[in-house]
Amino acid sequence: MNSQQKRLEQIKNHIASRFPESSENPSLEEFRQEGKYINPDVLMKHYLGSRYERMVSIWNTMANSPLFHHYDYEIEREEARKRGFQRIAELCSKHPITPEQARKDPESKFDIILGIAEYDQSEGVRVLVHLVLYLSTIEWVGTQKHKNFIEKGYSMQDIGCFAMTELGHGSNVSCVETTATYNHSTREFILNSPTSTSAKWWIGGAAKTANMCVVFAQLYVNQESKGVQVFLVPIRDKNTHEALPGVVLGDCGKKISMDSVDNGFIIFSNYRVPYDSLLDRFSSISPEGKFKSTIKNNEKRLGVVMGGIYGGRIIVVMSAEQNLRIATTVALRFSALRKQFGYSGKEVPILTYQLHKYRLVRQLGRVLASRMANFIINEMYIKILPLGEADPECDEVNEFHAVLSAYKALIGWYSVEGTQACREAVGGLGYSEYSALGRLKGNSDIHATWDGDNSVLIQQTAKYFLKQFQNTLKGKKIKAETIGFLETNYEVVKSFAAEFKSKEGLLNEHTLVKLAEHRVNYLLHTSMVKLQENAANSSEMLEAWNNTQVHHLQEIGKAYGELLIIKRFFDWVRQIKTECSKTASVMQNFAYLFAVDCMEKNLALFQECALSIEQGIMVKETLVNLCENLGYESVKVVDALSPDDRLMHSAIGKRDGQAYKHMINAVESAKNVYAKPSWANLILEMRKGSKL
Amino acid sequence: MNSQQKRLEQIKNHIASRFPESSENPSLEEFRQEGKYINPDVLMKHYLGSRYERMVSIWNTMANSPLFHHYDYEIEREEARKRGFQRIAELCSKHPITPEQARKDPESKFDIILGIAEYDQSEGVRVLVHLVLYLSTIEWVGTQKHKNFIEKGYSMQDIGCFAMTELGHGSNVSCVETTATYNHSTREFILNSPTSTSAKWWIGGAAKTANMCVVFAQLYVNQESKGVQVFLVPIRDKNTHEALPGVVLGDCGKKISMDSVDNGFIIFSNYRVPYDSLLDRFSSISPEGKFKSTIKNNEKRLGVVMGGIYGGRIIVVMSAEQNLRIATTVALRFSALRKQFGYSGKEVPILTYQLHKYRLVRQLGRVLASRMANFIINEMYIKILPLGEADPECDEVNEFHAVLSAYKALIGWYSVEGTQACREAVGGLGYSEYSALGRLKGNSDIHATWDGDNSVLIQQTAKYFLKQFQNTLKGKKIKAETIGFLETNYEVVKSFAAEFKSKEGLLNEHTLVKLAEHRVNYLLHTSMVKLQENAANSSEMLEAWNNTQVHHLQEIGKAYGELLIIKRFFDWVRQIKTECSKTASVMQNFAYLFAVDCMEKNLALFQECALSIEQGIMVKETLVNLCENLGYESVKVVDALSPDDRLMHSAIGKRDGQAYKHMINAVESAKNVYAKPSWANLILEMRKGSKL
Repeated sequence: MNSQQKRLEQIKNHIASRFPESSENPSLEEFRQEGKYINPDVLMKHYLGSRYERMVSIWNTMANSPLFHHYDYEIEREEARKRGFQRIAELCSKHPITPEQARKDPESKFDIILGIAEYDQSEGVRVLVHLVLYLSTIEWVGTQKHKNFIEKGYSMQDIGCFAMTELGHGSNVSCVETTATYNHSTREFILNSPTSTSAKWWIGGAAKTANMCVVFAQLYVNQESKGVQVFLVPIRDKNTHEALPGVVLGDCGKKISMDSVDNGFIIFSNYRVPYDSLLDRFSSISPEGKFKSTIKNNEKRLGVVMGGIYGGRIIVVMSAEQNLRIATTVALRFSALRKQFGYSGKEVPILTYQLHKYRLVRQLGRVLASRMANFIINEMYIKILPLGEADPECDEVNEFHAVLSAYKALIGWYSVEGTQACREAVGGLGYSEYSALGRLKGNSDIHATWDGDNSVLIQQTAKYFLKQFQNTLKGKKIKAETIGFLETNYEVVKSFAAEFKSKEGLLNEHTLVKLAEHRVNYLLHTSMVKLQENAANSSEMLEAWNNTQVHHLQEIGKAYGELLIIKRFFDWVRQIKTECSKTASVMQNFAYLFAVDCMEKNLALFQECALSIEQGIMVKETLVNLCENLGYESVKVVDALSPDDRLMHSAIGKRDGQAYKHMINAVESAKNVYAKPSWANLILEMRKGSKL
Repeated sequence: MNSQQKRLEQIKNHIASRFPESSENPSLEEFRQEGKYINPDVLMKHYLGSRYERMVSIWNTMANSPLFHHYDYEIEREEARKRGFQRIAELCSKHPITPEQARKDPESKFDIILGIAEYDQSEGVRVLVHLVLYLSTIEWVGTQKHKNFIEKGYSMQDIGCFAMTELGHGSNVSCVETTATYNHSTREFILNSPTSTSAKWWIGGAAKTANMCVVFAQLYVNQESKGVQVFLVPIRDKNTHEALPGVVLGDCGKKISMDSVDNGFIIFSNYRVPYDSLLDRFSSISPEGKFKSTIKNNEKRLGVVMGGIYGGRIIVVMSAEQNLRIATTVALRFSALRKQFGYSGKEVPILTYQLHKYRLVRQLGRVLASRMANFIINEMYIKILPLGEADPECDEVNEFHAVLSAYKALIGWYSVEGTQACREAVGGLGYSEYSALGRLKGNSDIHATWDGDNSVLIQQTAKYFLKQFQNTLKGKKIKAETIGFLETNYEVVKSFAAEFKSKEGLLNEHTLVKLAEHRVNYLLHTSMVKLQENAANSSEMLEAWNNTQVHHLQEIGKAYGELLIIKRFFDWVRQIKTECSKTASVMQNFAYLFAVDCMEKNLALFQECALSIEQGIMVKETLVNLCENLGYESVKVVDALSPDDRLMHSAIGKRDGQAYKHMINAVESAKNVYAKPSWANLILEMRKGSKL
């Protein structure tokens, strides 16, 4: 059934609805009116920051295109991919990007990806793979001779994919098994997948769409390993769209979610490609057949190569925020209209209950916090781009890498945990696919895994910190702006004690920032102590490192990420204040909420290093109070931050508050809703005892 | 494609595999050999307890039936329901239950449901709805005249469903809107769904399968409300399988998971049913038209009625354990064979890393703990059944209700959280549907919601406790066995301090049980204080109650549930010790692990009420050590507790450790794996620029 037929059937079903007529449900609107004043335009502008205008324009294109008006929750993979491709083609044709624009304004790519991801993250991923993973890799690792591939990529004559992960290797990229053997006599490379685990796996676009591919493979020159290098190769015939000889392309099959991304596998079998396939900015082979590299160390070189696709990771963090924001919008709106139990015989919205506010308002705090993380990494990115171009291993790039690694993990976890909390908070109707929460849960789930497993990646932050710390011990001065608070004297750290004496005393920027800084310092010192202790019992440093993860090194990235968010949150409130003090005042409470949330989550640690038991109780009670007090405003906040309902396509989370009506529509529009089962004969037979 | 064709295609694909040949992967077997000796038979027998023989026999039936050999992860709802029905029919025909057997041995129902749920929880649910929710309700609330329906239910001539929840009301059953108006002149009831929100919703079996239904509706006699009563009514014609006149039956549509359950909605429109439809054990209408009830209070009566379906809740708890056990099996096996990074240039299984063990071994501790919860509720159930028959409001039933409510929530949450942890721990391959983790996540998700929202239901436990507490303050002696530890003197509670001085000192039954008891006592007293404080600021007691949830009343059920598990866990270890001391010794460490896990999760609270900061650090370190030390054994434990691989149908979690091979098989067996997309023309067009 095409989408026009679908809509016709929907209308038919609606007219023929078998449900009793019901009047409009005023509950959401009534709830909304209870909240303090928030200026939605001011909030939205400050929330989107520099991307406000472009984002709104992209959202408008989508909201006005019939291709985006209907979301089919029961579509088959093949059809989902087709329709996704159509939507992508439409959007990219209306908001085209040129290579020059991408260079001058790197965020232009981000916006188109996040625009379509607002409708469906899996479609955003398809654009991301092409525009960022594929094209940015060529832009970063390629040289002059690869320029025409960049042109063809932006004009969509080529569609590219990014073949790094294999069936047997994910996070540990330097051990991929795909080989590229240099043949000097023909000046070719021969690509091979020598084992079944060496098949490239999960390659977005490879299963059905892409004709080009960047491939990570172990280079062998004269039987000598030269580490992982990157090759740009065609994989499908441009005219027939068939896989090229020597290349096997297949579909990785059904996933928990995001089936619309055609993740595929690639097997190379003596696939010969010309020398120019090597993206040779950092490594090359001379006409005499001698391998050269500007970065000698294989691991370091791989790190620098990956630096070219930081944009992908930034978008991953932004789409984690997006997921959680949409889920929170659905859950808060529904909880404001869903009435259950109550007082004096009158049912009340479930969002009026303390526990429910505690569960959901907290998530909204994390949504806003995730946005702060986005600001931080976007701004750093723009700053480091030219620096990294000049020196890919400079301090600023390392600092950025540490911050970005922390956020990729932290905001991804917020999204996983928060989306689940939203699903649970709306009860049974959240278990319907039509609520959108299933899709959002499935989408957020992968944020723990892709682009570097969270628990592996977040170790990068600890590594950076320890290095900085050791440098200071050696007398070097810390230059990195974001870690100026670092306290190298353990005695000073140990003697820290929070000074606040009341709940009110806790709620000020200075106190909350100091506590967040202290958390990092304390974790850093105790991790160092533990690491030294473990080093004495380990045969190599890496073993000691791995044995110092739980409660120590893993926590550093989280603490650091949350600290930077808290600081940035208060700055953001000040910016808003220049335009609307009432909106700023609500946002200030959200900043407090988030900072206290971070303490409460780690209360045992704070009690260990900073708080008395009485202060710990104050933290818990303050968090409950903040959630309580921000319940009504929460609905107004998500209203302000949500684009058109049609992009969210949740039957229960729409702005008009008519969740039951929309759920009935969704159910009555589905296939076979009133049909007798095609297998009714089996039931009749069993009834007659033929089976028993 | 039927399942035979499917298998043929599988074989064809396998022969035609385009992947390189690989040798067998020895990693899982090598890992397994590192573990200490565990006797798998002893462990399995003690794990299943009294149900060992029957469970194994049911599993064997399934493992030997071709209907269970293939699991299709991409099946459409309609087809999934058909095949599920066939499997259910097959299993129920081979393990039939008679009304007498169900009466004598209530667990016989449980086993058939859990048997099939081992293959797919959604199919277990379909049997559960019929055998427990439908039939037990008739058995409990019906009278002599309803006996024939019981007969017809067990012999599968009738298939029943259970219509309690509505679109507008879930947990708050006493406010359902469906009406049953008594018409004295015809001695009939007229059922109506007066509003759209009054439609019965999520009714398992209603969409496609059931011909009978128990309906919860507000009874009106002479325009007077008589509270919610239960009616037994036909909904489909037994011969044509069409919905009866006055009854609208529809499909609730796509869900996050468990699409194989045909959850439906029911709308009644002047549906006239005879007087005998009323299940009249507790309420009846005299021939003169006068309403009578043996339980005057509407709320109390509803509570007693629901008591008839405790079996459903017990199975829910058991299937939460089942979900988490299967997920843990998949994750542990895969993590023992998946190698990534390593030492001295040699990759090692990810399960050798501290962090990974911390994430997964802990989950296995909770699996075993969940089993202890099952023992507790099963044994209490068998004990209270005759007591409840005589007096449905007796103390023992109330105690059971408190324990069961706590476990429904607690074990459900373990399952949700743990299944997610397992998914994340296996990385990208866990995001493939063929890993089974998507299905398990989807199945466990509903455990937070169905059969009473967890956060609502767990309040029942706190309510019970506070009542017992108030009774003791009034001088009554506590009779309930499970709460004998209750300390009514707050001063005694406040002065508690844990005595252990070392990590070794922590690890003994006495210390751990005392700490777990103290947690309940402390929460109870602080909740009472908070409740009194809130009562002073609330217009009604219910408001104060609701404002005392976070950190207080919500926690009581968790603390109580975990305490009973810990006690039971050590008893269980002693039982095993009589047969195999080596197995018992490993299990004792799991008992320690679980007890310490419960402390670590609540460390801030324990620091507040029982532990010094130093002791808190010992708790954290002890948990890490226990997880470390039980890594190798964990794989042996899940081996012992898993039935045939074919019932688990996870490509990456099979016993043979050939995860990559099975994943390739799964992928190559899927539809269109190597096919060019049917929409390739769109790509070719875009390439030519026709869209740009």
